[in-house]
Amino acid sequence: MSDNKAWSGRFAEPVAELVKTYTASVGFDKRMAEFDIQGSLAHATMLARAGVLSDADLAAIRDGMEAILADIRAGRFDWSVDLEDVHMNVEKRLTDRIGDAGKRLHTGRSRNDQVATDIRLYMRDAIDRIVTHIRELQTSLLDLAEPNAATVMPGFTHLQVAQPVTFGHHLLAYVEMLGRDAERMIDARRRVNRLPLGAAALAGTTYPIDRHYTAELLGFDDVCQNSLDAVSDRDFAIEVTAAGSLVMLHLSRLSEELILWMSPRVGFIDIADRFCTGSSIMPQKKNPDVPELVRGKTGRVTGHLMGLLMLMKAQPLAYNKDNQEDKEPLFDTVDTLVDTLRIYADMMRGITVKPEAMRAAVLQGFATATDLADYLVKKGVPFRDSHEVVARAVKLADTRGCDLADLSLDVLKEFSPLIEQDVYAVLTPEGSLAQRDHVGGTAPAQVRAQIARWRGLLA
Amino acid sequence: MSDNKAWSGRFAEPVAELVKTYTASVGFDKRMAEFDIQGSLAHATMLARAGVLSDADLAAIRDGMEAILADIRAGRFDWSVDLEDVHMNVEKRLTDRIGDAGKRLHTGRSRNDQVATDIRLYMRDAIDRIVTHIRELQTSLLDLAEPNAATVMPGFTHLQVAQPVTFGHHLLAYVEMLGRDAERMIDARRRVNRLPLGAAALAGTTYPIDRHYTAELLGFDDVCQNSLDAVSDRDFAIEVTAAGSLVMLHLSRLSEELILWMSPRVGFIDIADRFCTGSSIMPQKKNPDVPELVRGKTGRVTGHLMGLLMLMKAQPLAYNKDNQEDKEPLFDTVDTLVDTLRIYADMMRGITVKPEAMRAAVLQGFATATDLADYLVKKGVPFRDSHEVVARAVKLADTRGCDLADLSLDVLKEFSPLIEQDVYAVLTPEGSLAQRDHVGGTAPAQVRAQIARWRGLLA
Amino acid sequence: MSDNKAWSGRFAEPVAELVKTYTASVGFDKRMAEFDIQGSLAHATMLARAGVLSDADLAAIRDGMEAILADIRAGRFDWSVDLEDVHMNVEKRLTDRIGDAGKRLHTGRSRNDQVATDIRLYMRDAIDRIVTHIRELQTSLLDLAEPNAATVMPGFTHLQVAQPVTFGHHLLAYVEMLGRDAERMIDARRRVNRLPLGAAALAGTTYPIDRHYTAELLGFDDVCQNSLDAVSDRDFAIEVTAAGSLVMLHLSRLSEELILWMSPRVGFIDIADRFCTGSSIMPQKKNPDVPELVRGKTGRVTGHLMGLLMLMKAQPLAYNKDNQEDKEPLFDTVDTLVDTLRIYADMMRGITVKPEAMRAAVLQGFATATDLADYLVKKGVPFRDSHEVVARAVKLADTRGCDLADLSLDVLKEFSPLIEQDVYAVLTPEGSLAQRDHVGGTAPAQVRAQIARWRGLLA
Amino acid sequence: MSDNKAWSGRFAEPVAELVKTYTASVGFDKRMAEFDIQGSLAHATMLARAGVLSDADLAAIRDGMEAILADIRAGRFDWSVDLEDVHMNVEKRLTDRIGDAGKRLHTGRSRNDQVATDIRLYMRDAIDRIVTHIRELQTSLLDLAEPNAATVMPGFTHLQVAQPVTFGHHLLAYVEMLGRDAERMIDARRRVNRLPLGAAALAGTTYPIDRHYTAELLGFDDVCQNSLDAVSDRDFAIEVTAAGSLVMLHLSRLSEELILWMSPRVGFIDIADRFCTGSSIMPQKKNPDVPELVRGKTGRVTGHLMGLLMLMKAQPLAYNKDNQEDKEPLFDTVDTLVDTLRIYADMMRGITVKPEAMRAAVLQGFATATDLADYLVKKGVPFRDSHEVVARAVKLADTRGCDLADLSLDVLKEFSPLIEQDVYAVLTPEGSLAQRDHVGGTAPAQVRAQIARWRGLLA
Repeated sequence: MSDNKAWSGRFAEPVAELVKTYTASVGFDKRMAEFDIQGSLAHATMLARAGVLSDADLAAIRDGMEAILADIRAGRFDWSVDLEDVHMNVEKRLTDRIGDAGKRLHTGRSRNDQVATDIRLYMRDAIDRIVTHIRELQTSLLDLAEPNAATVMPGFTHLQVAQPVTFGHHLLAYVEMLGRDAERMIDARRRVNRLPLGAAALAGTTYPIDRHYTAELLGFDDVCQNSLDAVSDRDFAIEVTAAGSLVMLHLSRLSEELILWMSPRVGFIDIADRFCTGSSIMPQKKNPDVPELVRGKTGRVTGHLMGLLMLMKAQPLAYNKDNQEDKEPLFDTVDTLVDTLRIYADMMRGITVKPEAMRAAVLQGFATATDLADYLVKKGVPFRDSHEVVARAVKLADTRGCDLADLSLDVLKEFSPLIEQDVYAVLTPEGSLAQRDHVGGTAPAQVRAQIARWRGLLA
Repeated sequence: MSDNKAWSGRFAEPVAELVKTYTASVGFDKRMAEFDIQGSLAHATMLARAGVLSDADLAAIRDGMEAILADIRAGRFDWSVDLEDVHMNVEKRLTDRIGDAGKRLHTGRSRNDQVATDIRLYMRDAIDRIVTHIRELQTSLLDLAEPNAATVMPGFTHLQVAQPVTFGHHLLAYVEMLGRDAERMIDARRRVNRLPLGAAALAGTTYPIDRHYTAELLGFDDVCQNSLDAVSDRDFAIEVTAAGSLVMLHLSRLSEELILWMSPRVGFIDIADRFCTGSSIMPQKKNPDVPELVRGKTGRVTGHLMGLLMLMKAQPLAYNKDNQEDKEPLFDTVDTLVDTLRIYADMMRGITVKPEAMRAAVLQGFATATDLADYLVKKGVPFRDSHEVVARAVKLADTRGCDLADLSLDVLKEFSPLIEQDVYAVLTPEGSLAQRDHVGGTAPAQVRAQIARWRGLLA
Repeated sequence: MSDNKAWSGRFAEPVAELVKTYTASVGFDKRMAEFDIQGSLAHATMLARAGVLSDADLAAIRDGMEAILADIRAGRFDWSVDLEDVHMNVEKRLTDRIGDAGKRLHTGRSRNDQVATDIRLYMRDAIDRIVTHIRELQTSLLDLAEPNAATVMPGFTHLQVAQPVTFGHHLLAYVEMLGRDAERMIDARRRVNRLPLGAAALAGTTYPIDRHYTAELLGFDDVCQNSLDAVSDRDFAIEVTAAGSLVMLHLSRLSEELILWMSPRVGFIDIADRFCTGSSIMPQKKNPDVPELVRGKTGRVTGHLMGLLMLMKAQPLAYNKDNQEDKEPLFDTVDTLVDTLRIYADMMRGITVKPEAMRAAVLQGFATATDLADYLVKKGVPFRDSHEVVARAVKLADTRGCDLADLSLDVLKEFSPLIEQDVYAVLTPEGSLAQRDHVGGTAPAQVRAQIARWRGLLA
Repeated sequence: MSDNKAWSGRFAEPVAELVKTYTASVGFDKRMAEFDIQGSLAHATMLARAGVLSDADLAAIRDGMEAILADIRAGRFDWSVDLEDVHMNVEKRLTDRIGDAGKRLHTGRSRNDQVATDIRLYMRDAIDRIVTHIRELQTSLLDLAEPNAATVMPGFTHLQVAQPVTFGHHLLAYVEMLGRDAERMIDARRRVNRLPLGAAALAGTTYPIDRHYTAELLGFDDVCQNSLDAVSDRDFAIEVTAAGSLVMLHLSRLSEELILWMSPRVGFIDIADRFCTGSSIMPQKKNPDVPELVRGKTGRVTGHLMGLLMLMKAQPLAYNKDNQEDKEPLFDTVDTLVDTLRIYADMMRGITVKPEAMRAAVLQGFATATDLADYLVKKGVPFRDSHEVVARAVKLADTRGCDLADLSLDVLKEFSPLIEQDVYAVLTPEGSLAQRDHVGGTAPAQVRAQIARWRGLLA
């Protein structure tokens, strides 16, 4: 607490003004106010059942907290830096309102386990919101993938044309990534959803508390089994930030592609005007601001992850003031994720696909060369040999500035006498796609099956 | 592949020497050789069942691979940088041995899905080893905690004496952290254990492959559902590195404490000579090298995590050569974790506890002040008021240079008339400990219960 | 600009509300307002001299800007998210005030070079402030070092007692580190202090601008020599953040030591109450909050550095919207540095030194063992042999629980007959200190000389 | 030292085998052997001049070291893990060869100042090599820029066509970035090039050493002024790694562009076959492996930076074993930088430019819209109004699928009656370029002037 006057019995001088602002957290931790009150009410209820608090005190605390919550929601609560943090602000106001009962609320707990409880309640709520928004983005991607289940586009490796895929198939790759992102959040939630309250400062308390009851009241799955660990670790927060970094990483890849696809030389898509802005000097500009910002914000969230890891490095047990630095990066990570996922779900609905540009690009890069190699293998040529035969054919077509399909049968036969008229069927993008008909393959039928599978999972 | 001569049909000049060494990966990816062969054998078995490969070819491949594996294990395999990576080295040797059948092995796959499969097999094995070593370290900690379930030591917050805890309780905090670390590894394993093979270069293949059969042969839980995703993402590797960073983070905290506890002014423990070294100049030195190195290696693993996140940022789909950079940090992370966990499990068995120093430290810091406050609360004083009363008593004792328990009853009564003779029972460390008797509390009975619980979980 | 209506001629629909807030930067870039105006006035002055702007327009712009600046300083300026950023807010207000002359201000520039100029002006100012505060902290450290130039304390390596040093000498290590930190800031300033204005959007402008004149008006040392580079790189910001990370790193080390030194078992110092706070549950606590927060904030700044590096990775030229993400980490880095340095300079003046505890610690760790080895070397024993002799003597003293100086001459002579009565002079801490009398050594005379040297440098 | 037997007098048991390998550094620090010997010789020379070492001993040491150096260079030196590090390996061998004189070499120093000296000598050499390779890459870029000083290409912002630039101008942006990178390395060199030797373990030494003489012998600019600082800080290494991260960051941007430019839809350049490889499955592929790896390795170096910062965080003074972890990331950073710069200088000479593709791209994106706006401003229209006029004209041209220059004068006049026939001159890319004729602008004359300026600077 910035104002050591609150413990004036121990201190000979008040906290310096600069120290007060430097150490105060109320500026950012006030966003946990509702969770702080929720935790306090559960704690008071448990204390009352344990006989530590009278029913009258409990009733007074409930009434007082209700009024405070109403003030906070209405923006009427006057947060004081002198009272340092959200906990002392709320408790002080409570005591102002209800007197001694307010002073009894802190029995059997410490700010150390209180703040750990608040963060976990906040994180649990945040995870649930993030997962919901991941689901919405997945649905938005499915909505775009469905009409494009058979839309031919070049699949790239090394940004060189590799093989034809469908645009729907390409989008499904991101549905998969986001699916794992949601899995990770849900896994992390299990570790978040354990009650630290009852650890008190670090060693537990001398009051006859019932931690399982408090956990039940707050919807926690379990209690933290060691008081020192309960107040000092923040691994759950780091885990969620790491999972969040992966969400952003995946979106940075999609963003990179959107930006690339909207570049005039590529021209595979257009993004609706409402997601774009212009230039103060160049009148013709329409810029893909949103994917660029998302790409940039990947660094932001990863930076938070690095900051948190460094923050916790080599801290001796139990609580140290360093830990106060966990909140801002955590809050900003959650905000960034929620905003980014929301805007992305919206933006994907504003994508216009340009199938003709995609198809033209397929024809520009010998995308069916592998199909020709496979064709020869099926006629008995070992794969490594057929690969070499096709490589030479590609070199010729490249010199002539044409596609493989544009070479005459006679010319193709010079590379291998096994090639016959039916080769042209496998050299079209559609022929190539249709044959990749296995789980995970790009054949339109497989793409549609995957869309249906995901619709079921997200229902 | 560094040597583009392997695809000479397409290229007009060979790869430059500097490029060859710059792009070659065999120097580090050869450690995946066994997994590469394992994957190739499963692929060949599946191809044979699908009728793509003859039984004779399959038999030849199996024989060839057996011989190659024997060579590798015996250190007789001659790795060639010209063949760039583990895949081409093994395949080339196979073809040298068995001819055309070797050239047919690569049918229906690409190095892109092959390397993704190898990494996952490697990671799965690594996770299992890491979890085993975490369990061993937990057991080692329990072995030290058990005889110290009632050993009094000061619990610190802000490195100031806070309240008495037991040394066993303190050690259990790390057992909890490591428990979550193992959970995270096991969660990550689910995402690692999915088969990418069949994705081929990026789009799947035209051969009638049976990916679920290959998955079954290799012990994968499922197949990757999208070919583009299968070859291009490395989120599972990043997830494991993030989980590994948390393992190191936890050990960095324990290391910090061991170093501190072994510092002469603290003197709580001694570390066996076999884990320590001396100084080239100062004859008296005995240094805690191992915990210091572990603390330092936390940066190493976090650095790898940062590197991997930055590596994957904004890569367009699907595979890009950048991804080759995933292996070294990953391998080094696994090695660091395994070595560190092993040495730590061993070192904890070489700890000598000095209970008298721990107890002396408890008496130096007013560790039972909270107990006095709780004592007054139980006599009806609101917590906030009793806190203030005790703060003043502490100030007096501090001035006199004595502990609270050293103040006479008359003196104590001046702070509150409610204080009576029975106060001295709560002012001893043992009295303080015994009263924190709830789940997660530091009472010796609770500590023993937790040890028993963990013994059960680890059995 | 979030509101693409500003370029409505090009756009068919306005920017979505969510996009508007997601892409707006005015919430944080308004802090550059004074620099933005400063840059605009220099630009206008140059345009007028070049004949592009009339004198009347220039006068109107100056008047308008003066009024706007007054509004901003008085907190009367109404920042609009619809106008996205500080540039458009200021320009729009200007045009509202002075009409067409305001619209002419943007001639020959773009927001891309405008924002690059603003950041550099901001950074230059920030660097100057940071260097000033570094100097103040160095002075504060010198003020504490001076009376402690001969105060004996144990020098530690591996947190084990190594050799006696003086507390003044120890503090001077930080004066050196901070000295290099200031050097780095000043080096970075050279690269910051180059004018990007004139690069316009990316290619320069068609107007007859005089960039050297603008540079002169704004106090820049030089102009950026390439327009694409001028608007797209942020390496100067990353460099300053890296230098800032090192400042924090150094302070994290000092913080670790302050926390350790204030821990009751060590007890080397006390920190004035005005920099400490108590506990909500433990009445006796006095916690070193400030150094703990500083230690934690090291992660914060390093996180920003990592975020910025990742932000810029692989961005194609020239300006991309990603770059907007550079400001928040940069501003927060500067704020953190300035606040931390200021509070630290203040706090060091609130340190009470406890020389007797320091001296007691010296006597507890065989700190003069190296002096004994050196004593023997001077009598002709090769260093490696004398090291071994002393190691055995230490072992004996350790067994007896006494210091080397407590062993009788007879006992010492058993280890080496060369030892005589004069050995006891080198075995005292003061004797040990006095002999380390060379540049950089810990002899009090050397410490005083270093203090004098630094006083001169900082004068 | 892993083998505490070396100080057996103090230790009751030898170091455990696992600990020996875990703590040994000889596997990587042997690369500093030449610098270690160089430092030892200077130290011995100084000791001899100070009368601490006899001339005979000095001569023996010189002879012994010469032989050892020859063994090392010939690969005949047998490095022993039992001797832990490079220092003990070399010293032990020396003593084996020359007896007691070898044991006297370590007089007045410690491994702490010895290793700090070795690293600095290594770093100084590494910086010089890095700067040389930066210069070579700059020259290579100039060689490519020169014939392309007037080659029209689209300048992009947001990957949208912005304004015409020349390819030479674009390349010069990287010459500028690399110029700053070299500046940073040279600045860092000043802080590297200070002598720590003489700090001994941490406190200096009792021998009458002459540190300035040793500094002179080793070519150091100055001596470290504080012994504790000299042995404990690694900020110079972090600074170089940060500067190295920026080098890689810049090259990651160029790499991204090369990859993009070589993608078939863009097709601005081709990279010589000797820098590219193919695919094991797709016969047509030619992949830009080198720029992709460089892009990926940016994460590698930044990861090292993160690791080093975290390594040093909150370490108390003076030397701790953690610091041993500084070497591997540092060495790998240097290797990565040197290899990458060398290969890049080579690769830029293997770039084929495709001017027609670049020009076609310019015409596709309304690149001269700003020129039209400027044209109107020069006729008296306020910039903001002319911007709006042109935006509407662009919208019309976009609808018609043509460039601005393709609109008839009558059509253009509908947007502004001020437009006349001479507008078409400014609407060509060449017209646009020519007008940006100021320092830093893209006019070919300016580009040529910049090339000449750099040729001078690099001469």
